[in-house]
Amino acid sequence: MLMHTHEARLAALREELKRRGLDGFVVPISDEHMSEYVGGYAQRLAWLSGFGGSAGTVAVLTEPRDGPGAAIFVDGRYTIQVREQVSDKLFEYQSVPQTSVAAWLADKAPAGARIGYDPWLHGSGWAKAAAKALADTGGELVAVESNPIDAIWADRPEPSLAPATIHAAEHAGASSQQKRADVAEWLAARGLDAAVVSALDGVAWLLNIRGADVDRTPVTLSFVIIHADGTAALYIDPAKVTPELTAHLGNAVRVEPRDRFVSDLLKLAGMRVAVDPERSVAAIFAALKDAGAILVPTTDPTVLAKAIKNPVEQAGHRAAQARDGAAVSQFLRWLGEAAPKGDQTELSAAAALMERRQATGRLRDLSFDTISGAGPNAAIPHYRVDAESNRTIEPNSVYLVDSGGQYADGTTDITRTVWIGPEAPRAEVKDRFTRVLKGHIALATAVFPQGTNGSQLDSFARQFLWQAGLDYAHGTGHGVGSFLAVHEGPQRIAKASAGQAGTGQELMAGMILSNEPGYYKSGDYGIRIENLVLVEERAIPGAEGPFLGFETLTYVPIDRSLVDLALMTADEIAWWNAYHARCHDILGSQLTGADRAWLDAACAPLAGGAA
Amino acid sequence: MLMHTHEARLAALREELKRRGLDGFVVPISDEHMSEYVGGYAQRLAWLSGFGGSAGTVAVLTEPRDGPGAAIFVDGRYTIQVREQVSDKLFEYQSVPQTSVAAWLADKAPAGARIGYDPWLHGSGWAKAAAKALADTGGELVAVESNPIDAIWADRPEPSLAPATIHAAEHAGASSQQKRADVAEWLAARGLDAAVVSALDGVAWLLNIRGADVDRTPVTLSFVIIHADGTAALYIDPAKVTPELTAHLGNAVRVEPRDRFVSDLLKLAGMRVAVDPERSVAAIFAALKDAGAILVPTTDPTVLAKAIKNPVEQAGHRAAQARDGAAVSQFLRWLGEAAPKGDQTELSAAAALMERRQATGRLRDLSFDTISGAGPNAAIPHYRVDAESNRTIEPNSVYLVDSGGQYADGTTDITRTVWIGPEAPRAEVKDRFTRVLKGHIALATAVFPQGTNGSQLDSFARQFLWQAGLDYAHGTGHGVGSFLAVHEGPQRIAKASAGQAGTGQELMAGMILSNEPGYYKSGDYGIRIENLVLVEERAIPGAEGPFLGFETLTYVPIDRSLVDLALMTADEIAWWNAYHARCHDILGSQLTGADRAWLDAACAPLAGGAA
Repeated sequence: MLMHTHEARLAALREELKRRGLDGFVVPISDEHMSEYVGGYAQRLAWLSGFGGSAGTVAVLTEPRDGPGAAIFVDGRYTIQVREQVSDKLFEYQSVPQTSVAAWLADKAPAGARIGYDPWLHGSGWAKAAAKALADTGGELVAVESNPIDAIWADRPEPSLAPATIHAAEHAGASSQQKRADVAEWLAARGLDAAVVSALDGVAWLLNIRGADVDRTPVTLSFVIIHADGTAALYIDPAKVTPELTAHLGNAVRVEPRDRFVSDLLKLAGMRVAVDPERSVAAIFAALKDAGAILVPTTDPTVLAKAIKNPVEQAGHRAAQARDGAAVSQFLRWLGEAAPKGDQTELSAAAALMERRQATGRLRDLSFDTISGAGPNAAIPHYRVDAESNRTIEPNSVYLVDSGGQYADGTTDITRTVWIGPEAPRAEVKDRFTRVLKGHIALATAVFPQGTNGSQLDSFARQFLWQAGLDYAHGTGHGVGSFLAVHEGPQRIAKASAGQAGTGQELMAGMILSNEPGYYKSGDYGIRIENLVLVEERAIPGAEGPFLGFETLTYVPIDRSLVDLALMTADEIAWWNAYHARCHDILGSQLTGADRAWLDAACAPLAGGAA
Repeated sequence: MLMHTHEARLAALREELKRRGLDGFVVPISDEHMSEYVGGYAQRLAWLSGFGGSAGTVAVLTEPRDGPGAAIFVDGRYTIQVREQVSDKLFEYQSVPQTSVAAWLADKAPAGARIGYDPWLHGSGWAKAAAKALADTGGELVAVESNPIDAIWADRPEPSLAPATIHAAEHAGASSQQKRADVAEWLAARGLDAAVVSALDGVAWLLNIRGADVDRTPVTLSFVIIHADGTAALYIDPAKVTPELTAHLGNAVRVEPRDRFVSDLLKLAGMRVAVDPERSVAAIFAALKDAGAILVPTTDPTVLAKAIKNPVEQAGHRAAQARDGAAVSQFLRWLGEAAPKGDQTELSAAAALMERRQATGRLRDLSFDTISGAGPNAAIPHYRVDAESNRTIEPNSVYLVDSGGQYADGTTDITRTVWIGPEAPRAEVKDRFTRVLKGHIALATAVFPQGTNGSQLDSFARQFLWQAGLDYAHGTGHGVGSFLAVHEGPQRIAKASAGQAGTGQELMAGMILSNEPGYYKSGDYGIRIENLVLVEERAIPGAEGPFLGFETLTYVPIDRSLVDLALMTADEIAWWNAYHARCHDILGSQLTGADRAWLDAACAPLAGGAA
């Protein structure tokens, strides 16, 4: 029997909890790999509540006392969306980090309550803190053997059976054997016997494999245990394993069914095992503890190695960006002609952009859902267009498009904000756009000593907004994978105080980051200018130590109609002109006809400017 | 019997340790208040080793095995100085943080060693960590009842008997009663019964008292216990208490002999007591534990309150800076004429500067030992001139002077770097000076949202050096007291990664900081430009939240002969001209004759400059 209403689903969950002797249950948006984006089979929260955001948690009490007896916890990005998608008759709305799930449960659950959680969907840190909060009020956090939602979700999608594929050496730039040898050396240097790699992009990077199990990120559902001798075991559904894959993995990588992962963890008795609390779920920690292994909590050794792109990956990114940049340029040319007529929408524009990316013949997937924001929708930094929110792109308004593609040689992520004519933009919009642009340039041209972290550079991008009493409430830059996750750690450029992981990570040559300052005027318009940049060594005559800077990777014209020349310094205009000369070099040969004419005009030097 | 050699002193200490059944002892530079600068009576490390720096630790083993059996631990600032002042026959040189004292002891002491420490000279955190490190190798850390050095140091100076004085309401701007009421409210809000205030500047601020017990910081040796009802007890040598002081303190502040502090701590059984691990020594923690008090480790409630200057203190600072600035200007005028003749030295210059400060009739003390650095000595950021290091100020060289005065209305701290003629400065020196200047201006003109901390602004001051592959190895700004310590917490502008406390502290309106970027070329010259700045609210039309900026407090001309105009933007030249116009306003009426003529020339507008 299929349950079509969230009310019926919630009632069925409560029945199931009662059957299991649980007084409540916690439902996160997560999978066994703590992925940022999860497959359909793991979209339990969406099925239960109707919420479509990418981050949130539901807590359900088996017996409601006052109120609905269930709550949905979301952060500031989703305050509005949750009210539109989730019934307040079934769920209270709660904000994190203001209210923690554990605190709410401790407050609302009956004395001595047994609250269930699925240890395959939570980190061990969360489980420890929640158990403590419940214990303080006499309650208990109980790990379930199987997820109670799976027991009642009759038409739950199967996990994807897409085959795992090989990430070719021409794109990877280093063999899996080499990568495994490096990890083995890392383990040996620390006196460790093995490491668990459970983040999907870590597995993919280590073994040079990819997949199609998760939207937007080309990974394959699997785990790895790697040993200090460089051998490893890959735990993966046998249906996904082709003969080519087996041949690619070679003799040093055992291929095992996914369900053998836990039994193999249980064999690590007495071994010193590296396991990452940020990337491995509580169930893995529990299994290693049960095994009698010596747990060494540490960052997964693939994380930093993956972040530092080798020369082949760097060249791949340049090629992918050039290809992607031509597609985005074709789109912008078309948009500049089509949109002022008033018959384009956020959805039609996003579709037009995807068509041009697909026309490259190389697009494997988008790297994330396109943020196509017209007017006030552009003021929502994490806006995701759907049929209901879809707005017409009005003439004489701001349009923001943040998008990217997955190509075998690189992952792209670019934001352009353009003025839709025919009239000239308002002075205020030009002022804000130019301040964002100046911050973008200040970061792009930053030079800094080795050892500098992202939080030390963040203010460069904000300073011109600050001078006008303005700011933006998101980070300035995130890491980007190579035909992998568009959000990749460990590095980040952001305010340290904002609490995002990675601002303390030293920036190292070979890392790729986004450079994306913005400005958002609620209910009116939004601006963001985003290019990807590559950290590179800088040879400075007379330098008193190693210094680093950024090579910009993304080349697509920026809308000159939004620039207030009076705010630009000569150095900034020189940057603009050099950037657009390079755009012309990279894109010129890829564009013809009207596209080429548009490019020529968009790349002409900016004249004038203040001192 | 007086022991005149460090060898004899070390031998005597070992005898004393043997007598006490100790296998070793740790000697820090510290006092019962964890002061940055300590009185002569507490200069145990200097007496034992000959080291004259302000930070360091000595560890002595009773029975040397291999090597001298004693070590002196200093940080990077003192690597050279320690080798000049301390015999390597008596002490190994060790660097912190690379080697910890506890790790060295654990490595060098015999198995089961009993290592003594004076719990009145160490924080509880240090004691806990050292005890653990020793315990790991079977050793034991033992708190001594009395300091063994005091037992052998026959001519140890007595602690100062200088009377405690009243800090007048016209300078304090808030009564002690008001401050105590605020602290009482802070305690009540946290459900606390009492707080221990053991930092000398905290006591001074809270009770509006000052003293003359410590060089360079006008504090009086004492402790305070303050209760949630606003009453307090001051523990102080009765010899320091005048009838005026008793009257000033009033009925709500009991005055007790200093040696009653511990017995009163022991009376706090069952009370919830705030005590600051950064500012209270291990003995205070131990006494509270013995008493059965409930210890609540937290930052001393006077710290933040003291850092936020009230309007009277702010006005006092402006007045003190104006007075001090005139003295520094007179000095710079004189130096510019005298030094090119080649017969001035670092010492004679420092004396000439002090004379001019004294001539104000208002100088109470210097706020720290003057850093008077000629040529290569200027390249040592924390250089302290003495008869041995004293250099002639050579014609055609760089001279750096970092100095300050204690006035009843404010504490000053200013650095100027000047070119000593008669020839024109080298292009390289001008380039470096101008980069430092541009960083100083970038920080002085920064605008930032409420909630910003010092580490977010630090890079503004470094960016122009970074562009040339250069940097400086110290922080950019420290807090400054009001007729109190020239280094005052909790705020700081520095790289967060440098590990100095305070970079995470939000900057708040009313805080005073130094703005002092620099550049140091080892063996050649050093540059630093330092003004004090006051954090102020900024009313920006259209601002989307509260924003802050800096009011510069220090007005003394900067050496225009060292400016490379080609590196300066129009905005920077405008800042320079406005700064010097204000110098002229503030200093003009205080200067006459040749001094006034010098000021007029020094404050003339800069012409030209690149875009």
